[in-house]
Amino acid sequence: MTHTDNPCFETSVNLLNDPQNQRVWSIIISLFGDMAQQPKDQISGGALTRVITPLGIKPEAIRVALHRLRKDGWIESVRSGRASVHYLTEFGRTQCAAVTPRIYAREPGAPQSWHLLIAAETCGQAALDEALLLPGYIAVNRTTALGFGPKPGKTQDLLALDADNLTLPNWFKTQLFPADLSNSCAALLKAVNAIPDPAPDLNSAQVATLRTLIVHRWRRVVLRHPDLPANFHPAGWVGEACQRRVFSLLDQLPRPVLADLCETPEI
Amino acid sequence: MTHTDNPCFETSVNLLNDPQNQRVWSIIISLFGDMAQQPKDQISGGALTRVITPLGIKPEAIRVALHRLRKDGWIESVRSGRASVHYLTEFGRTQCAAVTPRIYAREPGAPQSWHLLIAAETCGQAALDEALLLPGYIAVNRTTALGFGPKPGKTQDLLALDADNLTLPNWFKTQLFPADLSNSCAALLKAVNAIPDPAPDLNSAQVATLRTLIVHRWRRVVLRHPDLPANFHPAGWVGEACQRRVFSLLDQLPRPVLADLCETPEI
Repeated sequence: MTHTDNPCFETSVNLLNDPQNQRVWSIIISLFGDMAQQPKDQISGGALTRVITPLGIKPEAIRVALHRLRKDGWIESVRSGRASVHYLTEFGRTQCAAVTPRIYAREPGAPQSWHLLIAAETCGQAALDEALLLPGYIAVNRTTALGFGPKPGKTQDLLALDADNLTLPNWFKTQLFPADLSNSCAALLKAVNAIPDPAPDLNSAQVATLRTLIVHRWRRVVLRHPDLPANFHPAGWVGEACQRRVFSLLDQLPRPVLADLCETPEI
Repeated sequence: MTHTDNPCFETSVNLLNDPQNQRVWSIIISLFGDMAQQPKDQISGGALTRVITPLGIKPEAIRVALHRLRKDGWIESVRSGRASVHYLTEFGRTQCAAVTPRIYAREPGAPQSWHLLIAAETCGQAALDEALLLPGYIAVNRTTALGFGPKPGKTQDLLALDADNLTLPNWFKTQLFPADLSNSCAALLKAVNAIPDPAPDLNSAQVATLRTLIVHRWRRVVLRHPDLPANFHPAGWVGEACQRRVFSLLDQLPRPVLADLCETPEI
C-alpha cells in the first residue's frame, strides 16, 4: 500500500476524518460531486476503494453504500471487463448541481435586498409554508418568512413588503446558526488550520482522498445554513475563516484527472 | 318645552339616536369633550338636562351617570346657589385631549413610512407587547407589530426593519376594520346622510344635542380603528364618506357659547 506511506497524508486524514459521524454513502456523494459530476464522468470500483479506504472504511462498507445509492437512484454501476465502474444518474447529477454553487462559493453572501412575507395565525399559513419551500426564503418564526430580493408580484394571502435597514436580534442569529453548527464549524476550522500544507508528492488517489474529506466536512457545515452577509452571523461564528482555509487547501490540491485516478496502479 | 317644537330637530335626533346602545356616562363625556374641554369650562345641571333629555334619557339616569363619572374621577360637581355646575377634572381633560385629535381629524391618514417589529415564538414577546401599548403600533399577528414612521433606534430582542411597498391581504384589512365596525360605520353614514341640513332657528341646547349625538356616534366609530391610508381599508369601507358628512354637519352646527347654553331659559 505505497500510497499511504506518507506521514503528512496520514496526519491530514486523521485530522479531517470524523469516524463517529461517518456516513459512507454521503462521503461517496461528496467524492462524485467534487470529481465526477459531468454526464460522462465515471469512477472505477478500484479508484473508489483507493480513495475511500484510507478513511478507515472497509471495502464491504463501500459495497453496501453503493447498493443503497443505486437503490435510491443516485448512482448506476456497470461491469467493464473484470472491473466495475460507477457514475451519477441524471437524478444524482441534478441533486449535486443544486448544491454545488453553494458549496464552492468562495465569498460569504453580499448584503442584498430583502422582503418579508407574513401570515396570520389563522390565514395564509399554507401560502407561507409554500414560500418556505422555495430557495431564497428563511423562516423567521411560524408566521414570517424573510426572502432574498424584492417582494414578488403575487403573494396570495400574505402581508408582503420590501424590508430595509434590518436590525437582527441574537435569537434570530442563533436560530440561523445554531450552537451545534457553530461547534462543527469551529471544529472544522481547527482541523483545516492544523493540517500541513499538502506535499507535492501526493498521488492522484491521495489528492482525491483529501479533497473528498475537505469537501465533505465543508459541505456538512455550509449546507446547514443559508448564505447570509456578516450582519446575520452570531458572535464567534468562524464560517468565513473556515471558508478561506478550505479553498486555500483545495487550491493546493487540484482535481486529479479522472483517467489518472482510475488507472489501476501497479502494486 | 318650546325647544323641542322643531320637527327637523326631532327627526335628526331620532335618526342619530341609538337607544339600544346608550351609555349615558359616555354621552356626557362626548358632550364635555366637544364643548367644555378647557380648564375653566363648566356646564350647569340645567344645561346638561336640556341637552341630554331630548335623547329620551331621564334626569334620574343623568344623575346616576354623573355620580359614576365623579366616582371614576372624570367629573367634579359643585353647588352654585340653588343650581349645580359640572366640569371635567384634570384627569378627565387629559383623557379627552388624548383622543380629540383623532376624533376631529378631517382627513384620513396620509400614506407614510412604516416599520416592523418581529418577535420569535419564544423570545421578544415581552418587548413586542410593550411596543403594542405605544401609539402608532398595530398588531399584525401574535409575533408582529406594524409601526408608523421609521424603525426606532433601540428594539431590544426584536427583529426590526423599515418596511416599504406593502401589499395588504384581506385578512389584515378585516382584522383592522372588522365587520361589526364596518356595519356601525355604514349605519352612521346612512343616518348622517338622512338627516336634514340643520335649520337656522335651532337654539343653543338643540345645537348642543345634535353636536353631542354626531360626535358621540362618530367617536364610537373612529376610536375603534387606527388612522390608516386608503390602501388599508377593506372593500366597502365607508369611513371616508362618513367623516366628510360628519364634519359637514358639525360645520353647520357651530359650537354654542357655553354661557348661552347654561343660561336658564324662561319657560
